[in-house]
Amino acid sequence: MTNDVRSYVADHSADLLADLDAWLRIPGISAQPERRDEVIRSAEWFADACRRTGFPVVEIWPTDGMPTVYAEWPSEDPDAPTVLVYGHHDVQPVDPIELWHTDPFDPTVDGPVLRARGASDDKGQLLFHLLGVRAHLATTGRTSPAVTLKFLIEGEEESGSPHFEALLAERRDRLQCDVVVITDTGMLAEDTPSAVTGMRGLVLADVHFHGPDLDLHSGVFGGAVPNPAQAVARLTAALHDDNGRVQVPGFYDDVLELSEQERELLTRVPFDEARFLETSKSRALAGEAGYSTLERIGIRPTAEVNGIGGGYQGAGSKTIIPSDAFVKLSFRLVANQRPAAIREAVHAFIEEHTPPGIECTINWEAAGVAPCLVPIDTQAYQALSRAVCAAFDADLILPTWEGGSGPEAAIQQELQAPMVFLGVGLPDDQIHAPNEKVTLSMLYKGAEAAAHLWREFAEVGREGLKS
Amino acid sequence: MTNDVRSYVADHSADLLADLDAWLRIPGISAQPERRDEVIRSAEWFADACRRTGFPVVEIWPTDGMPTVYAEWPSEDPDAPTVLVYGHHDVQPVDPIELWHTDPFDPTVDGPVLRARGASDDKGQLLFHLLGVRAHLATTGRTSPAVTLKFLIEGEEESGSPHFEALLAERRDRLQCDVVVITDTGMLAEDTPSAVTGMRGLVLADVHFHGPDLDLHSGVFGGAVPNPAQAVARLTAALHDDNGRVQVPGFYDDVLELSEQERELLTRVPFDEARFLETSKSRALAGEAGYSTLERIGIRPTAEVNGIGGGYQGAGSKTIIPSDAFVKLSFRLVANQRPAAIREAVHAFIEEHTPPGIECTINWEAAGVAPCLVPIDTQAYQALSRAVCAAFDADLILPTWEGGSGPEAAIQQELQAPMVFLGVGLPDDQIHAPNEKVTLSMLYKGAEAAAHLWREFAEVGREGLKS
Repeated sequence: MTNDVRSYVADHSADLLADLDAWLRIPGISAQPERRDEVIRSAEWFADACRRTGFPVVEIWPTDGMPTVYAEWPSEDPDAPTVLVYGHHDVQPVDPIELWHTDPFDPTVDGPVLRARGASDDKGQLLFHLLGVRAHLATTGRTSPAVTLKFLIEGEEESGSPHFEALLAERRDRLQCDVVVITDTGMLAEDTPSAVTGMRGLVLADVHFHGPDLDLHSGVFGGAVPNPAQAVARLTAALHDDNGRVQVPGFYDDVLELSEQERELLTRVPFDEARFLETSKSRALAGEAGYSTLERIGIRPTAEVNGIGGGYQGAGSKTIIPSDAFVKLSFRLVANQRPAAIREAVHAFIEEHTPPGIECTINWEAAGVAPCLVPIDTQAYQALSRAVCAAFDADLILPTWEGGSGPEAAIQQELQAPMVFLGVGLPDDQIHAPNEKVTLSMLYKGAEAAAHLWREFAEVGREGLKS
Repeated sequence: MTNDVRSYVADHSADLLADLDAWLRIPGISAQPERRDEVIRSAEWFADACRRTGFPVVEIWPTDGMPTVYAEWPSEDPDAPTVLVYGHHDVQPVDPIELWHTDPFDPTVDGPVLRARGASDDKGQLLFHLLGVRAHLATTGRTSPAVTLKFLIEGEEESGSPHFEALLAERRDRLQCDVVVITDTGMLAEDTPSAVTGMRGLVLADVHFHGPDLDLHSGVFGGAVPNPAQAVARLTAALHDDNGRVQVPGFYDDVLELSEQERELLTRVPFDEARFLETSKSRALAGEAGYSTLERIGIRPTAEVNGIGGGYQGAGSKTIIPSDAFVKLSFRLVANQRPAAIREAVHAFIEEHTPPGIECTINWEAAGVAPCLVPIDTQAYQALSRAVCAAFDADLILPTWEGGSGPEAAIQQELQAPMVFLGVGLPDDQIHAPNEKVTLSMLYKGAEAAAHLWREFAEVGREGLKS
C-alpha cells in the first residue's frame, strides 16, 4: 500500500506543481482591503480545483469578510467516519517587498524548493490534500473516499479569522464530523516527522497614541508637552521586565503548567538550538528567564512587538514632536489562558501606561484565538501517527508545541470532535517573511500521508475515533 | 524717522509679497538629497534678489553640501561698523503632506497670513531684510547703508548645518564683522516684541537596531530571539525617568544654572500657559518635574523622540518579529553643555541599552550645535531693543530663551563678535509642521526694525559695539 501510494504521488507530482503555480499567482492578501477581489478569486480558484479533483459538492460560503471554500465528498460506506479538513486560502502581506529575491506572486522553482508567498502557508499544503485524495482513491480502487471528507478552507486566517466563529456557528450542522484534521502547520525537519500536539492562542492589539493635533517643532515645544512616540516606547518597554517576563498583571494566572509526561516528551524532541538560531538569522537567543528555547516558543505565553511607528520616517532628521504614534502588539497564549481575559488585562495595562494628554485608541483584531491541546493518547492521534510514519518511512512521530495560531480552538469548541494536525511546513520556510518557500518533497510526503490517513481513520471507525 | 520708515515699508509691502510668492515656490528641502537641485535654485533666486536690491557683491559659495548665499554692501563711511546677518534659504520637509490644507509650495494668502513651507522659517524673514535695507536707504537719503552689510544665508540649516563650520573657517576673513544679527527666530506675540537672549544647542542621533536578517513569524520565533522594535522601545523609554529627567549619565553635568537676575527677568515674560497649550494643540503640559513650562522650553536641556519605526506599518496586523527598527532622537543643549561631550555620553548610553544579538548603528547628524547666550547689558542688545521698540511702538522688549537651534554658536565662536537676534516668527507659525504660515504684519514690522537697526548700529559705532 505504501509503495502504491508513493508511486501514484510520484507519477502525479507534476499535476500538483502545475496547480501550485497557477494558484500562487493570485495575491489573496486578506489583511489588505484593496486585495478583496484577489482573495475572492483565490477562493474561486480552489473551489474549481476541488471540482476537478472530483468533489461532488463544492460551495463558496460568503462571510461578512472574505469567503470560505467548502467541499464535501461523501463516502459510499454508510458507517464511514466523517473527517473535516481545515486550512486557509488567503496569504500574508509581502512587505518589505524589496527584500524578496523573486516576485512573491511569480512562483519560482529553485532546485528542491518553490518560492512564492503562500507556497508553504497554506496553498501548497492544501494542494497536497487534493493529490492525497486522488492517491487514496486510485490505490484503494474506490470511487468515493473511505471516509466522508469535508474541506473547510478559510479566507481570513492571516488577518485573525474575524468572521470564522460566526460561520462555524451558522454552518454547524453541515460541518458535523468525527475528527478534525488541521493542515496549516509544520514538522521539525525533513527527516524528523512530527505533529503538533499543542497550539498557542493569539490576541492582537493595534495601539494608537494621539498627542498634539499637529507635528510640533521639538525646539519650541519639546520637553513641555506629551510626546506620543515617547509614550508608545514607554508602554512597549513596560511590557517586559529585565527577565523577559510579561508585566501585564494577571497575564500568567491561568497558564496550565505541563505534566511530567509532557515535559518528558518535550525533552525527547531533537531540538538543535544552533540550527534554530541559524534559521532565525539572528545573532543571539533571548527570552523569558528560566525556560529553554523550545519552551519559549512552544509552551510559554509571550508578548511581541510586530510593528512600531510615529513621527519622521524619512532620510535625515526632522526636529518634531510627532502628533501620532502606534504599536502593533501580539500576545501568544497557552492553555488555559482565555483571549477575553488577556484582552481585558492588556487593556487595563495600556490605560495605566497612557500618560495624561495622550489619547489612546486600541483596535483589537477580532476576538482573539484560544489556545488548543491535542491529547497524544487518542486513537485519532495514533492513526495520524501511523499515516505519517508510512509516508516518511519512520518508526514514530514526535509531538511538538507549535507557536502559530489559527482558529483551531474555535473549531474544537464548536464541533466537539477530536483534532489532529497534519502539516508539512519546515522551520526555514520563511512564512510571513520575504522569500517564503516550500520544500516540494514535503508536499509529496504530505500527499502520501493524507492518502494513508483516510484509510487509517476508516479502519479506526466512528466509535474508535471517540476514544 | 519712525513714520518715514513705516510709510516706506507700507508703500512697498507688495514688493515683499511678490518676492515671497516667487521664492516659496522653490521646494529647497535640504534634508532630502533628491531636492538638491531645488536647494541650488533657491540659493540662486535669493542671490538674484540681493542683486535687485542693490547689493554690489553677491556670490554663491559652494560647500560639500548645499550652497550658501553671500551678499555684501560696503558702507561709504570709512568708520562704519560691519554687520553680519545670518539666515538660511533651505526649508523643512513637508510630510505628513496629507495634513496640509494647501499645497506647501503654492503660497496662499489667507487674510492676515500667508501659508507655505518656509513662509516663516526662514524665507519670509530674509525678505523683510531686503525691504529693510531699501527703507533704510530711502529714509536716510543714503546711496549705501550706514553700516557695511554682509548677508550670510545658509542652505543646510534644516539638516543640521553639516558643512557650515568648515565654511566659516574657510571664509573667516571675508566674514569679519563688529556684530552679528541672527534672523531665524520669533517673538512672544504680535503685541509683545521680544528678542532671543539664549539659544539651545542640538545633538541629533539616528539610531538603527538590526535584529534577525529577515522578518520572522512571531508565532514561530517570538519570545526566543531579540526583537529590535522592542529593543528600540526599551532604549527610548530608558531616556527619561518618571519625573522627566534625562537618564543619560553625565547629561546635566555642565548645565549652567541661571543667575538671579536672569531668573527674575524670566518671571517677567508674560507667558500664558493656557495659550501655549492651545498653540501646541496638545491636551496637557508635561515635562521635567520642578521646572515651569517656560523653563522647560527655554533653559532646560531635553531629549526628544522625533521619529520611531520598525516592523509592520500597514493596515491590519502582521505577526512578525521585525528585522529592523530605528529611533530618531534630538537633544537640546543649554549653556555650557558641549555637543561632543553629550554625543559621547549618549553613545555610551545607547551601547549600554543595546541588548545582545542586536546590531546598533548610530548616525550622528553632523557634529551637533553648541548652545549660545546673548548678554542683555551690551550696547548691541540695547541698539536692537531701540530698533524693535520703534517698529512695534513699544517701550521695551522682553528677553526670551528660544528652543530652536541653528549654527549661531559656531558663528559666535569663529567670528568673536557680539550677537543679537532679530526675528519676527510667532509661536503659532507651525514651522516644521504642516500648514506653516507667516503673519504678514510681522514681516513689515521686521522690515521697519531692520531699517532702524542699521542706523542704531551706526550711531553706536564700532567701539561702542565692543561694550
